[in-house]
Amino acid sequence: MAKKSNEGNVALGVVGLGGRGRGLLAILLGMDDVSIPAICDVLDDRVQIAADQCEALGHPRPEGYNDYRELLARDDIQGVVIATSWTTHARIAIDAMKAGKYVGSEVGGASSLEECWELVKTSELTGIPCMMLENCCYGRNEMAVLNMVKKGLFGELIHCQCGYEHDLRDEIAMGIENRHYRIHNYKHRNGDVYPTHGLGPIAKCLNINKGNRFLQLSSMASKAKGLHNWIVDNLGKDHPLAQVDFTQGDVVTTMIKCAHGETVMVIHDTTLPRPYSRGGRVQGTRGIWMEDNNSIYIEGQSPQHTWEPFDKYLPKYEHPLWREYIKMGVRGSHGGADYLCLRAFVESVKDNRPTPIDVYDMATWMAVTTLSEQSVAQGGHPMPFPDFTNGMWIERLPELVGKYSLDVIYEQE
Amino acid sequence: MAKKSNEGNVALGVVGLGGRGRGLLAILLGMDDVSIPAICDVLDDRVQIAADQCEALGHPRPEGYNDYRELLARDDIQGVVIATSWTTHARIAIDAMKAGKYVGSEVGGASSLEECWELVKTSELTGIPCMMLENCCYGRNEMAVLNMVKKGLFGELIHCQCGYEHDLRDEIAMGIENRHYRIHNYKHRNGDVYPTHGLGPIAKCLNINKGNRFLQLSSMASKAKGLHNWIVDNLGKDHPLAQVDFTQGDVVTTMIKCAHGETVMVIHDTTLPRPYSRGGRVQGTRGIWMEDNNSIYIEGQSPQHTWEPFDKYLPKYEHPLWREYIKMGVRGSHGGADYLCLRAFVESVKDNRPTPIDVYDMATWMAVTTLSEQSVAQGGHPMPFPDFTNGMWIERLPELVGKYSLDVIYEQE
Repeated sequence: MAKKSNEGNVALGVVGLGGRGRGLLAILLGMDDVSIPAICDVLDDRVQIAADQCEALGHPRPEGYNDYRELLARDDIQGVVIATSWTTHARIAIDAMKAGKYVGSEVGGASSLEECWELVKTSELTGIPCMMLENCCYGRNEMAVLNMVKKGLFGELIHCQCGYEHDLRDEIAMGIENRHYRIHNYKHRNGDVYPTHGLGPIAKCLNINKGNRFLQLSSMASKAKGLHNWIVDNLGKDHPLAQVDFTQGDVVTTMIKCAHGETVMVIHDTTLPRPYSRGGRVQGTRGIWMEDNNSIYIEGQSPQHTWEPFDKYLPKYEHPLWREYIKMGVRGSHGGADYLCLRAFVESVKDNRPTPIDVYDMATWMAVTTLSEQSVAQGGHPMPFPDFTNGMWIERLPELVGKYSLDVIYEQE
Repeated sequence: MAKKSNEGNVALGVVGLGGRGRGLLAILLGMDDVSIPAICDVLDDRVQIAADQCEALGHPRPEGYNDYRELLARDDIQGVVIATSWTTHARIAIDAMKAGKYVGSEVGGASSLEECWELVKTSELTGIPCMMLENCCYGRNEMAVLNMVKKGLFGELIHCQCGYEHDLRDEIAMGIENRHYRIHNYKHRNGDVYPTHGLGPIAKCLNINKGNRFLQLSSMASKAKGLHNWIVDNLGKDHPLAQVDFTQGDVVTTMIKCAHGETVMVIHDTTLPRPYSRGGRVQGTRGIWMEDNNSIYIEGQSPQHTWEPFDKYLPKYEHPLWREYIKMGVRGSHGGADYLCLRAFVESVKDNRPTPIDVYDMATWMAVTTLSEQSVAQGGHPMPFPDFTNGMWIERLPELVGKYSLDVIYEQE
């Protein structure tokens, strides 16, 4: 293939080149207006594989680094995409903002409230936007539901549910040989370690940090049996992992209370056999959407006491961005959501404007992990959310930041 | 019709003759081996309607009372069925046991932990069984799921969910003219005021009070909007009820932790528009059942990551009692569950043996209401469950108490 020109492109570095990082890299390389002059991973073999991948796709071979600080020192990149381990997202994001680079960080939870505060303070001090790349915010159903909420279909919101219900036992157990960090978290932590796939879209429905906020949460963890049983059944009782006493409860349930009286129930459920679900539910004074039966009930429209298929409402409430996307051709992983999410980031960098998911969103959503661990450790004691906006949420309004905005629906002309 | 003879019958009094009491009365009158010599309600018109109902069905006209203590003083009745308001169940049950009558009490929650203790102590002191008539424990699906649990289909149980999700706005608002007590509770209380339809069957799956117990709970209530909005929309903004500031949150979420590390999530959701559900979910190390999509997933049996219809598993796991019941002809209200539940009570009285739902179950399940109100009042603070067995749960074993037993599956010869 002919090498593509980098002229006039958004130049991004990618930090973290495991499976997820390379997946995001491939999507970015598919964008005409993006170039990737620099990539980084602590493991050199991953750097080489990713660099080869760039060349194979007809792009110039990027410079490879093992130390992200060297990548950040380059003056030819405008932003970084971070796809490292959960526990390193915040520190890399903070250093990136200090280096003047837009941050697009993969999802995960915080290790402390302090690192959430540091994210916020660094972004405020440097003026550099920091976006959590919460792809599920750009899922087709999530965006349609957001559009329904904004159009008032459910009335005043009262209660929501969401979660990450994904049987990851084999992936987790294979973490040692795959050099994946998840298993180490499950060996030592106990809480909702991965809240944002469910909670991000719900937080947008609830105007969190823009006229509303999360006030407090309580979490409860079940016993931890699923992973151990899977290991014994599949790897044998003499396997070294069969001796591990995992701390991470199989099912962690979290209840969140909002400033305006809405409640959110969040589930983390990744070590038991089950089909995938994000357990979505949005419920208001006029109706309810539920993911698990893929249904909607709207007072005065639905037959009394009877669910209707979600798909019946989709044509009317398809999000404008998805209408356009379907015409253009849906692409990339996770049903097309990854591409849209990355485009939201890339176009923010390109236009030098705020990101649709901002540093306050990121700090608040990540904080759920820390607060949930603290609540579990204290037997379900309610933990207060910090107000990462320091009071600005009261007067901050949902704002349009381009067509990828999640706070206001961008309507096509 | 010819008057039926009362000879050799189980003689019961019915206390509380609103809609539910008269419904139970009709089912009892349909049983050949039951007679109803006495009925009671504080409202005389209800007593007369119920007495007329008995005669219309060919039975002798029962003696009517306004004071239940006069009914309890009769020496010709062996038990009472209590279908009064939630807040009077315990005191009537306690007096009935003191009068030597078997108690079958309608469902509801406790007003205080003290009345739960008093139920237990009175039953222990008098030796009289006290059964909560939790009809949902005898629902067809609930019994099949119980059978699946006991057969080990789900492996070791880890997490359960349940609830009472029932749009009752019209019934509640009509409570004043219908002289129904629910609206008064919603005007003054805030918690899971009606936990047992969901929680009773789940507690039986989890062997609560027989080798396991509820340790603690935390509850969170949403704002209260649904009932007020319904009243304004349907009765008008000048209706007296439109001025009422209801205290009962629209959705109350409760998390319970068990002694063996299982968690239970319970929802109370009765003042928003939605189709009915008891939100059942039973999840273990081998599989999961979920009511809302009417599906099951069993590792090694179901296609990977794919739900299967519940009905596919029903033929194999139909509860033996329901196999027999279907052959005999399902009868009575609530899909046949009311009849089975009342038969469980009647046959316990007849055989003078323990009831399948006992006073410890009743005290524990009712206590959820009190604890949930207390937790909501304290911002979600976790509340400890009393051990109503005073330590006996450690050595109590699931026991067969006839074919209606809910702790052990009675298999037909």
